[in-house]
Amino acid sequence: MCRWLAYSGTPLLLDTILYKPAHSLIDQSLHSKLGVETTNGDGFGVGWYPQEGVGTPALLRDVGPAWNNRNLREIADHVRSPLFFAHIRASTGSPVQQTNCHPFRHGRWMWMHNGAITDFHLIRRELALLVDPELYSDIEGTTDSEVMFYLAITFGLDQDPPGAVARMVGAVERIGHDHGVEFPLQMTIAVTDGERVWSFRYSSQGTSRSLFYSTRVDTLRELHPDLAFLREVSDDSRLIVSEPLGDLPGAWNEVPESSYGVVQAGADEMYPFVPEPA
Amino acid sequence: MCRWLAYSGTPLLLDTILYKPAHSLIDQSLHSKLGVETTNGDGFGVGWYPQEGVGTPALLRDVGPAWNNRNLREIADHVRSPLFFAHIRASTGSPVQQTNCHPFRHGRWMWMHNGAITDFHLIRRELALLVDPELYSDIEGTTDSEVMFYLAITFGLDQDPPGAVARMVGAVERIGHDHGVEFPLQMTIAVTDGERVWSFRYSSQGTSRSLFYSTRVDTLRELHPDLAFLREVSDDSRLIVSEPLGDLPGAWNEVPESSYGVVQAGADEMYPFVPEPA
Amino acid sequence: MCRWLAYSGTPLLLDTILYKPAHSLIDQSLHSKLGVETTNGDGFGVGWYPQEGVGTPALLRDVGPAWNNRNLREIADHVRSPLFFAHIRASTGSPVQQTNCHPFRHGRWMWMHNGAITDFHLIRRELALLVDPELYSDIEGTTDSEVMFYLAITFGLDQDPPGAVARMVGAVERIGHDHGVEFPLQMTIAVTDGERVWSFRYSSQGTSRSLFYSTRVDTLRELHPDLAFLREVSDDSRLIVSEPLGDLPGAWNEVPESSYGVVQAGADEMYPFVPEPA
Amino acid sequence: MCRWLAYSGTPLLLDTILYKPAHSLIDQSLHSKLGVETTNGDGFGVGWYPQEGVGTPALLRDVGPAWNNRNLREIADHVRSPLFFAHIRASTGSPVQQTNCHPFRHGRWMWMHNGAITDFHLIRRELALLVDPELYSDIEGTTDSEVMFYLAITFGLDQDPPGAVARMVGAVERIGHDHGVEFPLQMTIAVTDGERVWSFRYSSQGTSRSLFYSTRVDTLRELHPDLAFLREVSDDSRLIVSEPLGDLPGAWNEVPESSYGVVQAGADEMYPFVPEPA
Repeated sequence: MCRWLAYSGTPLLLDTILYKPAHSLIDQSLHSKLGVETTNGDGFGVGWYPQEGVGTPALLRDVGPAWNNRNLREIADHVRSPLFFAHIRASTGSPVQQTNCHPFRHGRWMWMHNGAITDFHLIRRELALLVDPELYSDIEGTTDSEVMFYLAITFGLDQDPPGAVARMVGAVERIGHDHGVEFPLQMTIAVTDGERVWSFRYSSQGTSRSLFYSTRVDTLRELHPDLAFLREVSDDSRLIVSEPLGDLPGAWNEVPESSYGVVQAGADEMYPFVPEPA
Repeated sequence: MCRWLAYSGTPLLLDTILYKPAHSLIDQSLHSKLGVETTNGDGFGVGWYPQEGVGTPALLRDVGPAWNNRNLREIADHVRSPLFFAHIRASTGSPVQQTNCHPFRHGRWMWMHNGAITDFHLIRRELALLVDPELYSDIEGTTDSEVMFYLAITFGLDQDPPGAVARMVGAVERIGHDHGVEFPLQMTIAVTDGERVWSFRYSSQGTSRSLFYSTRVDTLRELHPDLAFLREVSDDSRLIVSEPLGDLPGAWNEVPESSYGVVQAGADEMYPFVPEPA
Repeated sequence: MCRWLAYSGTPLLLDTILYKPAHSLIDQSLHSKLGVETTNGDGFGVGWYPQEGVGTPALLRDVGPAWNNRNLREIADHVRSPLFFAHIRASTGSPVQQTNCHPFRHGRWMWMHNGAITDFHLIRRELALLVDPELYSDIEGTTDSEVMFYLAITFGLDQDPPGAVARMVGAVERIGHDHGVEFPLQMTIAVTDGERVWSFRYSSQGTSRSLFYSTRVDTLRELHPDLAFLREVSDDSRLIVSEPLGDLPGAWNEVPESSYGVVQAGADEMYPFVPEPA
Repeated sequence: MCRWLAYSGTPLLLDTILYKPAHSLIDQSLHSKLGVETTNGDGFGVGWYPQEGVGTPALLRDVGPAWNNRNLREIADHVRSPLFFAHIRASTGSPVQQTNCHPFRHGRWMWMHNGAITDFHLIRRELALLVDPELYSDIEGTTDSEVMFYLAITFGLDQDPPGAVARMVGAVERIGHDHGVEFPLQMTIAVTDGERVWSFRYSSQGTSRSLFYSTRVDTLRELHPDLAFLREVSDDSRLIVSEPLGDLPGAWNEVPESSYGVVQAGADEMYPFVPEPA
């Protein structure tokens, strides 16, 4: 399994979120508290949209652990971004290679995943056949996560992200059930087009991996008027994380089972998530 | 494109073949003379059968250039083998990752390739669908070469290597032609089960990459009675190489276009190679 | 800090020791029980003497974690050796690079270390100046461990390993104390010339990292007559390990504080270890 | 040997300089025309000052070839900078590791080098002893280039870059001559504090590696009024390169033997370079 975080809001040095917090993602790479594995050392990735405006995000991905990677440290110390994803990987079997590191990118879209398709090797072929044939050759790695991304693109991610993810999940569950898999899918997912961030928490069994979102900054500021950091970020700055980055009272809220949220200009939203047939 | 060599015969330190010759494979990684690219620095691999008897071969593969890899140098200096493959890669587009490095292995079989399937991205999906569904999930990388290997396995490599390769080529050419590709395939291939080595030279256009085999050692010994090295290896020791490792007169013979050879106990053999429908 | 093991005895597939045991070194790379750090993912190394007789040992070292390294898995599955070292690293600050991975080699000698020189950056220069000037340029990495090795060579490792190590420790403590460091050194060390293995447990404070040696095989065989594995290895096969590889009753004995042992043909020996002025 | 480039001027996407030109640095990594080696595949580095103002530069360095590195491609496509260095390495013997990749950084300073200290292993120790003892432990790699950087810092780089480099060269030549080396040094060097760039061309024998600087943009614009690119960059934008990035008439000027130049706000300058005793 893995750990990830998504940030959207006031442009920040990546370091502020990736390294500074007490239980930062880098700390989680060595000592995850809520993950299935305590160590997430099988590669990492960070993807960010440059400050100058939306376009394709930049990716830095590598196969070693995040905790000792110098290039990640450099990027974190020198790059500011209003929207970035970061992911640390604990492989569930597929090779440790750059093309298996999250986030994945397609045009202006980024995608990352924690969880697994149960018995993926049994249904990898059938899932790959569902991917739009025009896109098949764009699949570069061998993870379930990337196939899920390409299925979501096939099912209309560009027009309707929640619907596309619902149909992706529907397809995975149908094919898994066809092969006698009782609980085919386990996932938390983040996906963005550079403007909005959608995050999903779902599992076939109803026991999904942990997922949290940060409290609105204006509310946090009232709770903690002494925290200088909160005065530097806008009210709608938001973090979505596999596990809380610290223990600030009131800062973290669990995403309910079978839900998805949208972080966007204006009010953020949360909805129930229900797979759709596909 | 790439460069490769296959050795079968008296157990030798890998160093004897990989580094010692004037125009060794390591030298070719920097300065190939006959290759499409002069530099072959996009990963390498060596696969060897241990001396103690046939079993699965060991693989050492990595993503950097062969010329500066210390682990390869260590293995070459300390491991003896009666049958080994070595390959240096110049990527034609697919990612530089361990799972894209040759040789590929399946059970006791090893496979390596120089060349390319033309417009592979156009037909990758159709070719993958021809692979035995039981084997689909074993494909770990994204090269044309590995798909060709799995097609050959699907088409009976275990029972009839030349026939399986002929059917693989037939399938690639048929599907390529279906997509309007005039010359779908370019290849030199080596494949072994640990006892025999089959090597193939073929291209749809009839202008195949170079391939050479060494003269029988007893003949070479008569030509060069002063060469100590020749007294240490058995008469039937044999090298098959993308390009000659030196310029010893009489040592190297070109494999004819559209041919394949078998290196085996007893007399080696050479035959014409003709693709078969599949 | 780090974890290591040294094996001497009946030639074994490296896999038998590196991967097979319940709490193998590979398991310790993710979940060390007795180490300062639970994760040892900052590079690894294995060094082995080929079966064919003593010479220089072969090294396989790499910068990623041991637990997901495919080349290590391949070597372990295919190489037999009568004497090998393995080491997993948790960096205490120096870069994660191949030249900082243990074991280190000089001629036929191998050396590996767990522990640290306190405030090494303060005394690195003075220690380096003590190294035989002829050897200074052979230092390839930046660890305290490698400088300790070169000091031991300077102080006569080739003639008198325990004396050379005692003088190395004496020098480190003297220079550390000169710089106001109360407890300059913490170490467990293994060193071999390919025939004998010396192992040391010592720290300036008298609270050394853990070190264990396996019980003689003939004694173990009496304790556990049902264990097939014990019938396949000679009486004098011996393991020295940072932490036990399992919980077989009677199998593991702690090396006492300030001691060193010698594993050799004939009876193994254990002595007190006392630093010497140098 | 190596190849490098330094850019100062209108903030540009790194891609504009690193990949776009016909004979870009990336192309030189495979096919250098003027270098000692045609292939420069033993690691690379890029260092850039963020647009938001001078501070420490960011470094991206890795051990594989530049031509197939995806993270470099990502940074080049997404990062703009008014001052950046890029370097591709062909090792002359020291290990291929991140800490041996240029540029090197110390505070706000960056340094890169093409060339070599002759018989460096003979005088490495003496040179290292000349480095300010406070700085000795900051040396992370094992190249001559990094020792030259630390000598220049020791000799006053912060106050007087040309003088510090002249004294560094004087020291290297003196110690080399003491060891019977006829021509101790070969170098082109670029060094910057984030505001000015100094570049040096010198060798003890008077046969220095090639070095070129670009013609002032206003002059180039008159020569080539049709080139859109030239309208987008300021008059004082400047490139210094190991070899020209293309064959635009009038664009490239060779730096004379034994010279150094300063790229700065206002008029750039060129002076003779003479080693000083140290």
